[in-house]
Amino acid sequence: MSNNEVALIIGGGPGISASCARLFCEQGMKVAVAARNPDKSVLRALQEEYGVGLYQCDAAEPDSVSDLFESVCKDFGSPKLVVHNIDGRSRDIFRKSITEADPALVLDVLKNSTFSAFLVGQQAAKNMLQEKADAAGLRGTIIFTNASAAVKGYPKSGAFAAASHGKSGLAQSMARELMPEGIHVAHVPIDAAIGWTQEDGTRAHRLAGTSVDDNMADPDRIAETYLQLHRQHRSTWAFEVILRPWVENW
Amino acid sequence: MSNNEVALIIGGGPGISASCARLFCEQGMKVAVAARNPDKSVLRALQEEYGVGLYQCDAAEPDSVSDLFESVCKDFGSPKLVVHNIDGRSRDIFRKSITEADPALVLDVLKNSTFSAFLVGQQAAKNMLQEKADAAGLRGTIIFTNASAAVKGYPKSGAFAAASHGKSGLAQSMARELMPEGIHVAHVPIDAAIGWTQEDGTRAHRLAGTSVDDNMADPDRIAETYLQLHRQHRSTWAFEVILRPWVENW
Amino acid sequence: MSNNEVALIIGGGPGISASCARLFCEQGMKVAVAARNPDKSVLRALQEEYGVGLYQCDAAEPDSVSDLFESVCKDFGSPKLVVHNIDGRSRDIFRKSITEADPALVLDVLKNSTFSAFLVGQQAAKNMLQEKADAAGLRGTIIFTNASAAVKGYPKSGAFAAASHGKSGLAQSMARELMPEGIHVAHVPIDAAIGWTQEDGTRAHRLAGTSVDDNMADPDRIAETYLQLHRQHRSTWAFEVILRPWVENW
Amino acid sequence: MSNNEVALIIGGGPGISASCARLFCEQGMKVAVAARNPDKSVLRALQEEYGVGLYQCDAAEPDSVSDLFESVCKDFGSPKLVVHNIDGRSRDIFRKSITEADPALVLDVLKNSTFSAFLVGQQAAKNMLQEKADAAGLRGTIIFTNASAAVKGYPKSGAFAAASHGKSGLAQSMARELMPEGIHVAHVPIDAAIGWTQEDGTRAHRLAGTSVDDNMADPDRIAETYLQLHRQHRSTWAFEVILRPWVENW
Repeated sequence: MSNNEVALIIGGGPGISASCARLFCEQGMKVAVAARNPDKSVLRALQEEYGVGLYQCDAAEPDSVSDLFESVCKDFGSPKLVVHNIDGRSRDIFRKSITEADPALVLDVLKNSTFSAFLVGQQAAKNMLQEKADAAGLRGTIIFTNASAAVKGYPKSGAFAAASHGKSGLAQSMARELMPEGIHVAHVPIDAAIGWTQEDGTRAHRLAGTSVDDNMADPDRIAETYLQLHRQHRSTWAFEVILRPWVENW
Repeated sequence: MSNNEVALIIGGGPGISASCARLFCEQGMKVAVAARNPDKSVLRALQEEYGVGLYQCDAAEPDSVSDLFESVCKDFGSPKLVVHNIDGRSRDIFRKSITEADPALVLDVLKNSTFSAFLVGQQAAKNMLQEKADAAGLRGTIIFTNASAAVKGYPKSGAFAAASHGKSGLAQSMARELMPEGIHVAHVPIDAAIGWTQEDGTRAHRLAGTSVDDNMADPDRIAETYLQLHRQHRSTWAFEVILRPWVENW
Repeated sequence: MSNNEVALIIGGGPGISASCARLFCEQGMKVAVAARNPDKSVLRALQEEYGVGLYQCDAAEPDSVSDLFESVCKDFGSPKLVVHNIDGRSRDIFRKSITEADPALVLDVLKNSTFSAFLVGQQAAKNMLQEKADAAGLRGTIIFTNASAAVKGYPKSGAFAAASHGKSGLAQSMARELMPEGIHVAHVPIDAAIGWTQEDGTRAHRLAGTSVDDNMADPDRIAETYLQLHRQHRSTWAFEVILRPWVENW
Repeated sequence: MSNNEVALIIGGGPGISASCARLFCEQGMKVAVAARNPDKSVLRALQEEYGVGLYQCDAAEPDSVSDLFESVCKDFGSPKLVVHNIDGRSRDIFRKSITEADPALVLDVLKNSTFSAFLVGQQAAKNMLQEKADAAGLRGTIIFTNASAAVKGYPKSGAFAAASHGKSGLAQSMARELMPEGIHVAHVPIDAAIGWTQEDGTRAHRLAGTSVDDNMADPDRIAETYLQLHRQHRSTWAFEVILRPWVENW
């Protein structure tokens, strides 16, 4: 693959999205980032430093997602690498017992996580299938970030388990459908807390005396795996890669 | 458990729901069946023969589900066995490639399957937790019927894979949360086509020369497994049981 | 199925095997139990009370296993229900780190668990396939008891994880191969400590103030599930059932 | 990690082992390859071109494996990357029904695959734990190659399913035990036929009109994934990566 491909990252924040944007830019890609609110300092910084394109998008709204792809295609070209990086979990649904969970918020997490993954996956597939495959027969890569809850349904986490498992099922179906078409669909549950860059520029960490890289998933390293998945030869495509820190209990 | 317990089956049709209603009644339970349209001949027949209570319910609507439980509690008493038996798949979403699937229908299947499972599971748990446990410490059983798509994401089945996986994740989370409270949560993917009674009273079957029992899951037998799960001693609770016919390829 | 079928239980002790023998006898079956050392008081008691046949067998030795089936066929008839109930784990391998495990003991656990499961499964299948199927097309049931280690590889448990996973893989292959021949192959990991009858006749339990049924898998209840699996209609065969107590953490 | 680390590959042939040896040498590593018969032209060629060390080893024999590690440590230094690449399946066990499989060959496949994986894993862990961790806290990487049969037990494949599942269980247990010690344990089932270099230098392929890279797993690409796993940062270690060609049915 050439290095000036277009990458589109949906769900923009200071963690995986920012790390992906930075790494993909450094690899020579043209990068677009979409977020419900793209006016965040970490995204503005990426725009200034690397020319990353910023887009407003509500990924749970069909029209908003199709508009996004149209704009990115017009501005940069058809994306060859699409990352769906939305967790969808609001603070108000976190650690709620099944009896306490507010139905409206449960539906929201299903929409923001599972349904938005469908909308993004659909537009990504449509775009990739419209373009001619490259010389190696490849059309592109679609990566779904997911959470521990995709692998195990934890107590007091019913809505999030449902949404994360749902995203996993969607990704699996898309992989079986699209891989023979030359589209690498990958599902990456991060079975860990994810480190991030704090406002003062330092990296967050969980345990005193350890660096962020030690006991939390470092988003820069997650981005490396995403790049490897994108570059992985089609004779050996991995569908699912669960990433966890060395000290994680599983 | 006494035999005059209340059972509530959500999602009423001529397959598993009718078989469950019949078997549970024969076991002495008081049975309520809820359906979007309860005015079906198979349900009316159950009402006449066994006194099954029929309820109109849109299981994807929070108020409709809470109203249902209120009515059933008033009419029969608090349900000790609740079966969520909604597939949620409309014909128009069936075997659609990811690019062809209509987003509105995808959201519908998520609502009708995963979200309705949450709503039903939540009301069931609320009711069971409000009641005193019986002498053996048991509060009741919640069973989620599911499909092959809960176990494997098939191509051209993204929306259904998402909804079915989502229901599976929800069930798992609820099991870990509620089993220690004396509520047996079970998840039963039926990895097969399910037989049913046709209008002329004969049973449907798939292959010439075989009976329905041979190559399709017989709903009467599924109902037996549900009853066993409900009666299963809490020292050996099964969470997941995948049922498939002997000749099924898997 | 008629009730005077022959059941053969391999691996005889005071837990699952004794409970199965008792229940199967009470159901009218003719029961044989094989053990490395069949001269145990719990087995002698079953022999006296129910006429259970006791056989000496080293289930890791091909000739010993084929001799066993020959003897049982001659004494009772061809077994329709075979339970492989050998854990294979010696005390000396328990909780050993990978660096401390004695290779000779590791090979022993592979032989006593996985390889003996193969030998027993092979003889069971041979016998069942030689007999005519019954009117319902059934030839019999083969049940493999397994441990938590079949589902998850715990640290300091490498040999046991290998042996238990191996037994699981064997069972899965046999299920896919033999179910279409009318043989129900089932795999039952018990994800818990298992209660047992102590020398003084009382039941063992783990936590003060709770009964054995509460926090350990009660072998009498495990036996009930085995009977249900044997009686389960072939239109809805379960391959795998993981049993765990309601309070178990998983 | 420095680039002059020692890599040890157990199970030497023209497929994954040769590709790994070549790639690891090109990365500056000192590479040792052990095989039951190291006198193969493909291995001799690696010895001549890259200085790969060749060792005779029966990996199912405890003494042979400990001798191997001793020799490699003496000749090259303590291995930081160990690949267990033994399938263990003899032609005579292939596609045998459960009733036809020769018990002696079944035990052989368990020894050659599962037990040898234990022996190699144990020696690798011992060596890595004896050495000081590097500045990043890393002690090394142990990779177990596995087959489709590790993921699914196919019919007429009982022995191989048992051995492959067994290896998987071992790897999982070792990962949970050793990752917190700074050893990256990875399990890589190749869900596909694997291409190889034929005697005449051409690459084998399965379907007319396609290249080896298209429809079989290319061992050169598998080797790339192994190198990535070895280099993967410990904040995001993948335990399991299933590799399959884009056109594979799964």
